[in-house]
Amino acid sequence: MSVDPPPVPRSRPGGRTARIRTQVLDAVSAELAENGYDALSIDAVAARSGVHRATVYRRWQDVGGLLADVFDAAAHLPWEPRDTGSLRGDLAALNQEIQDSLGAESSIAVALIAVSFRSEEAARALRQLWEDRYAQSEIIIRRAIARGELAPEVDARALLIAATAPLYHQLVLLRTPPDPRLPDAAARTAALAAAAGAFTPLPAPADQSKVRGRRRAPM
Amino acid sequence: MSVDPPPVPRSRPGGRTARIRTQVLDAVSAELAENGYDALSIDAVAARSGVHRATVYRRWQDVGGLLADVFDAAAHLPWEPRDTGSLRGDLAALNQEIQDSLGAESSIAVALIAVSFRSEEAARALRQLWEDRYAQSEIIIRRAIARGELAPEVDARALLIAATAPLYHQLVLLRTPPDPRLPDAAARTAALAAAAGAFTPLPAPADQSKVRGRRRAPM
Repeated sequence: MSVDPPPVPRSRPGGRTARIRTQVLDAVSAELAENGYDALSIDAVAARSGVHRATVYRRWQDVGGLLADVFDAAAHLPWEPRDTGSLRGDLAALNQEIQDSLGAESSIAVALIAVSFRSEEAARALRQLWEDRYAQSEIIIRRAIARGELAPEVDARALLIAATAPLYHQLVLLRTPPDPRLPDAAARTAALAAAAGAFTPLPAPADQSKVRGRRRAPM
Repeated sequence: MSVDPPPVPRSRPGGRTARIRTQVLDAVSAELAENGYDALSIDAVAARSGVHRATVYRRWQDVGGLLADVFDAAAHLPWEPRDTGSLRGDLAALNQEIQDSLGAESSIAVALIAVSFRSEEAARALRQLWEDRYAQSEIIIRRAIARGELAPEVDARALLIAATAPLYHQLVLLRTPPDPRLPDAAARTAALAAAAGAFTPLPAPADQSKVRGRRRAPM
């Protein structure tokens, strides 16, 4: 899931205006990933992109405007999860995309997450982008329901978060180097939990305490 | 898991030096949570703590020294996971602590995570703190093995991360408001996955493809 925002599409139909946007947004992403939010300025972006600074000022006004447009471009990237034929395979493919994005040397995705701790506007934009990506990923769950791998009442969002959260936790928060086994391992965990009913509605509290009671017995 | 660093212990044995440390580190945490890293300064901390700025300068030198000591104090907090009698209960109690810490109004834990994106020194300290907390939490897994709830070869770290990652993902990255059901739901998911063998070594690749083949069959 390029939840993990950009990259901004390299080739974009539609003339000079679109080309300038691509050049400028690529430069914003590269500046962020290499030099961070504090160093981000219209001047640095103009210099890097080769676009005249007057043009950048006129169209994006300030750093906030540039960032908003980076998120906007990412949100409009056509993207859909791969169809591998199984729930575990689909989740593993999704996780692989996340790991590729978050684990990259100068990860733009991690840079944008870092920015979201600095700017409420960026935080909102990132939240919206993730919201869109999780919504787009729900097709993985619908396909699994259609195949009979999941019950129709499964909580798609909870399952997707369980499958993907370990990647974010390890790569963004714990800053563990990418483990090539992690995308599939986290997918397998989520698929096994799903098969065991983890994401279908919980039994009512009374039943739940009974379940707990049983589990407390040794063995 | 006060993975989620402080709070610095309120009452700490040992005279004036220890009291001053508590006052100053509490002030650092409060400043971070309320005003963020950019506003953090020796002067602001001295003013808030009521400790003379010369004393703060002498003992901590700079903002980096203050932050390092906040992490150090958190690392030495005596902490151990609750023993509820079941794997799911223990993980839910751990998750509740994480949710309480991350979901607080001006969360010090979230402020320290934010700082870790600004300072490599803070990032290292936070990583070490998490490392310690996960190591301390492994007793949850050992107890579950002793009760027969888990196989002895279970990957304790992977299980703990699966159980806790959704909390961090929702509260820190997606910034979802705390959901009172989440601590237990994520615990239940991890416990169900564990019971289904998710955290024990994967079968060899050949077997794994057979498993996949079976799962691809509709129904």
